[in-house]
Amino acid sequence: MSQGLDVFKEGDDILLVSSKGKRRVVKIQGDRIHTHKGYLVTRDIIGRKPGIIVKTHVGEEMLALKPSVADYIPKLTRRTQVMYPKDIGYMVLSLGISSGAVVLEAGTGSGAATMVIASLVKPNGRVFSCDVNEESIKIARKNLERVGLIDYVELIHGDVKNIDFKVSFDAAIMDIPNPWDVLSRIVEFLKPSARICIIVPTMNQLEKVYRAMLDTNVAHLETVEIMLRRIRPFEGRVRPESIMIGHTAYLMIGAKILKENI
Amino acid sequence: MSQGLDVFKEGDDILLVSSKGKRRVVKIQGDRIHTHKGYLVTRDIIGRKPGIIVKTHVGEEMLALKPSVADYIPKLTRRTQVMYPKDIGYMVLSLGISSGAVVLEAGTGSGAATMVIASLVKPNGRVFSCDVNEESIKIARKNLERVGLIDYVELIHGDVKNIDFKVSFDAAIMDIPNPWDVLSRIVEFLKPSARICIIVPTMNQLEKVYRAMLDTNVAHLETVEIMLRRIRPFEGRVRPESIMIGHTAYLMIGAKILKENI
Amino acid sequence: MSQGLDVFKEGDDILLVSSKGKRRVVKIQGDRIHTHKGYLVTRDIIGRKPGIIVKTHVGEEMLALKPSVADYIPKLTRRTQVMYPKDIGYMVLSLGISSGAVVLEAGTGSGAATMVIASLVKPNGRVFSCDVNEESIKIARKNLERVGLIDYVELIHGDVKNIDFKVSFDAAIMDIPNPWDVLSRIVEFLKPSARICIIVPTMNQLEKVYRAMLDTNVAHLETVEIMLRRIRPFEGRVRPESIMIGHTAYLMIGAKILKENI
Amino acid sequence: MSQGLDVFKEGDDILLVSSKGKRRVVKIQGDRIHTHKGYLVTRDIIGRKPGIIVKTHVGEEMLALKPSVADYIPKLTRRTQVMYPKDIGYMVLSLGISSGAVVLEAGTGSGAATMVIASLVKPNGRVFSCDVNEESIKIARKNLERVGLIDYVELIHGDVKNIDFKVSFDAAIMDIPNPWDVLSRIVEFLKPSARICIIVPTMNQLEKVYRAMLDTNVAHLETVEIMLRRIRPFEGRVRPESIMIGHTAYLMIGAKILKENI
Repeated sequence: MSQGLDVFKEGDDILLVSSKGKRRVVKIQGDRIHTHKGYLVTRDIIGRKPGIIVKTHVGEEMLALKPSVADYIPKLTRRTQVMYPKDIGYMVLSLGISSGAVVLEAGTGSGAATMVIASLVKPNGRVFSCDVNEESIKIARKNLERVGLIDYVELIHGDVKNIDFKVSFDAAIMDIPNPWDVLSRIVEFLKPSARICIIVPTMNQLEKVYRAMLDTNVAHLETVEIMLRRIRPFEGRVRPESIMIGHTAYLMIGAKILKENI
Repeated sequence: MSQGLDVFKEGDDILLVSSKGKRRVVKIQGDRIHTHKGYLVTRDIIGRKPGIIVKTHVGEEMLALKPSVADYIPKLTRRTQVMYPKDIGYMVLSLGISSGAVVLEAGTGSGAATMVIASLVKPNGRVFSCDVNEESIKIARKNLERVGLIDYVELIHGDVKNIDFKVSFDAAIMDIPNPWDVLSRIVEFLKPSARICIIVPTMNQLEKVYRAMLDTNVAHLETVEIMLRRIRPFEGRVRPESIMIGHTAYLMIGAKILKENI
Repeated sequence: MSQGLDVFKEGDDILLVSSKGKRRVVKIQGDRIHTHKGYLVTRDIIGRKPGIIVKTHVGEEMLALKPSVADYIPKLTRRTQVMYPKDIGYMVLSLGISSGAVVLEAGTGSGAATMVIASLVKPNGRVFSCDVNEESIKIARKNLERVGLIDYVELIHGDVKNIDFKVSFDAAIMDIPNPWDVLSRIVEFLKPSARICIIVPTMNQLEKVYRAMLDTNVAHLETVEIMLRRIRPFEGRVRPESIMIGHTAYLMIGAKILKENI
Repeated sequence: MSQGLDVFKEGDDILLVSSKGKRRVVKIQGDRIHTHKGYLVTRDIIGRKPGIIVKTHVGEEMLALKPSVADYIPKLTRRTQVMYPKDIGYMVLSLGISSGAVVLEAGTGSGAATMVIASLVKPNGRVFSCDVNEESIKIARKNLERVGLIDYVELIHGDVKNIDFKVSFDAAIMDIPNPWDVLSRIVEFLKPSARICIIVPTMNQLEKVYRAMLDTNVAHLETVEIMLRRIRPFEGRVRPESIMIGHTAYLMIGAKILKENI
């Protein structure tokens, strides 16, 4: 991320932004880089600095930037519900994740949150991420290698119920269909006072997780939904965009407590 | 943050959460720790593990947790508009901030965003934060010392227009009343392709910043507002809370571009 | 409502709007009309036209308007959950209520919706409104008399389950805690194809009503929540207000169907 | 609207609701009624009661309802920005429109609001609606005839600046691109204390209208935006829909005042 004075090299990823604001991460390889508005000639880009404006063979101008980790999120193979930056951003702050933290993730999915968290806890922290779906683990591994963060992540194929992590976690994330079934197991590996964030799309799941929290050593801190609305800031006609995402998921935040009252 | 097996010591901060979910960070000092529901006896807490449930002298139970950086945000002296976790979380992801990044902040305010970003870029990254208001710098310094993050921050009293930072930044934040006046200056210190986030509360400011981006080497990527709604997940009566924050600020995200078309 | 050329008379209601936009309906009676910013001298107002600006004895200017029916809503005695104009407005359109319609309301509450609907169905339409709570009926009667709409409303003290309305309704509203228990009864009095709106505050109630619709001759058309955000349109600093109502209730709209397929 | 015991006749409109909730108003005419899921045989529908479930030639079940006025809104020819039921509903209540009112509409557009207001003010009230675009007037006339409300509307082709309405209005609506230019003219025809609602899509227009209100005898009461979110109430998986409309327009509500202070 902090290699800003470099130039684009073969094999690098590039973030292309169209004049209408559409963004896409593509790899610099082959003779041509294909976009939805014509192709770019690869040799015109290699050796140039990020931040330049490039032109496709049909004359469409695009901005060529270095991608951030969050730019990969929309691209991640959509095998599972993908977490959105608006949700991951709030989750990271609520969990108190910072550089050096050791974080558990139950439900790797496509690795969107894994990737962001790895970029924040490095170089001394780690993410342990498990998924029952082997394909998810493979895809996440590929994505983490692509963005150069695989060294900070332990990917584990298996059910969180059966894994002995052998570490204590500073924070945990659960993005699985049945978090109430494994909450008590996950809490065993949490340090006291550590935060946990459970991501669920329906209100019925909220209810079940809340019930499970009462039955476990987890105090409910808050449940939120985050809505993002894009605004058009153009001079003389500032207005919100007509269409927005109405719902992705709810975030439930809890903390591990010790049942020894004083 | 990752000292979960420790116990509370004199001088530590403690996050108290009431049974109604109210949260407050207080320092462990003196004989008594005062809350809005009676006091706690300090010596009952010292030596105990975070995560315990404590009781005030009037019998009110509270959860005693270790605070995360974000927990300090509501507490920060309200001299200036305070940024909310919902906004800081999205900003951090949009800017591609990760451990090791060197970040510029124009407008320290009370240091809420400074603190969060420092916790993410450490140990090898840095935040350079400047403010024209000397009192802001003092308060931010105190807050950063309190949370143990001052070593990762350069606090500078002065106008961003007149400061020679002598470094190139991976990302920048502007939380000042007149960002359009200094945008071109700030961009000089950004690496090409680096992202910048400008925080403004009114639509008129959006318009002016957008105009200033067109006049500078900054491409507009997106403008958003983030809304957060709290949900009550209690069994049999799941519903959103009646009152919510309707507006804090808009976030405008741009990227430094090079005006050499190809 | 359409007596705009009249002047204020003793006993009339008056809508006072403060310079900060606070609105309150008060009755013109006695020597003084008390506001939260001093009193007005009653004889200064009688005989004047609505639309004038008046001044309290401490010099506070207020706008003196004729109240609309919706202006009474915040004032209604808060015995029960009060419906908000944002919800009533959408409900009225979704139900296809128009002048001449005959409407059933289960759950009179304080009569907020009753009042609005009566003002729309008059002079030839009627609202039949019932409540198990006798006090609600008394309050609603008082409110309806005050706004001159009592002639268009049948107020009935009793459980909707036991009432024989002896008419067929063009539309129905249910604002009671257990709509699923009486849905099938209410549907008996609806004309085929007539719409029904059920108002509930929790998602658990939504689920139960949906289940009851499947068991009854009611097709679910849509379930919505309406959010209202106030905007400050002041020159040079246009922005949404900081605080907003985050939740009042969900509206479920259905239609009576005939179970004779073709 | 209140002819619920009738049966469908040739020439009637019918609201078809698919199993997925898609709604469309079509006319009963010809041999077949075409839908996006096959056709219906017209003679199977004529003589049946509204509320029945019908089947297309490919076996798709649809609900056959009598349309309400609001059901026509999505269908209206999209020559101009169309007002949404969520906005019209709130507007109607804010303006205090009720049966018998005489209402001015500047900017007929496709007649969506015209139609709803006519259905509410009838039989003794009237809507005077003008538009500079002759085509709009023609389309609105056709739509109003179709729903049987043309008798309650005066459609006027022309600029509101040049029209002498010769009546005093109880309320006014402006849905035109430049409301600030004609506000003072419109106010001349308003009764004192009467409300006016100005509909604009951008924040810049809000500012200009607010300025114009200060220069005219109009007090600003409130400016709002109304957001509607659809909810899926299905058992065991209650959740908001993923996509929502993020913005349609702002509503500014004012009242005509008399500049004679007391």
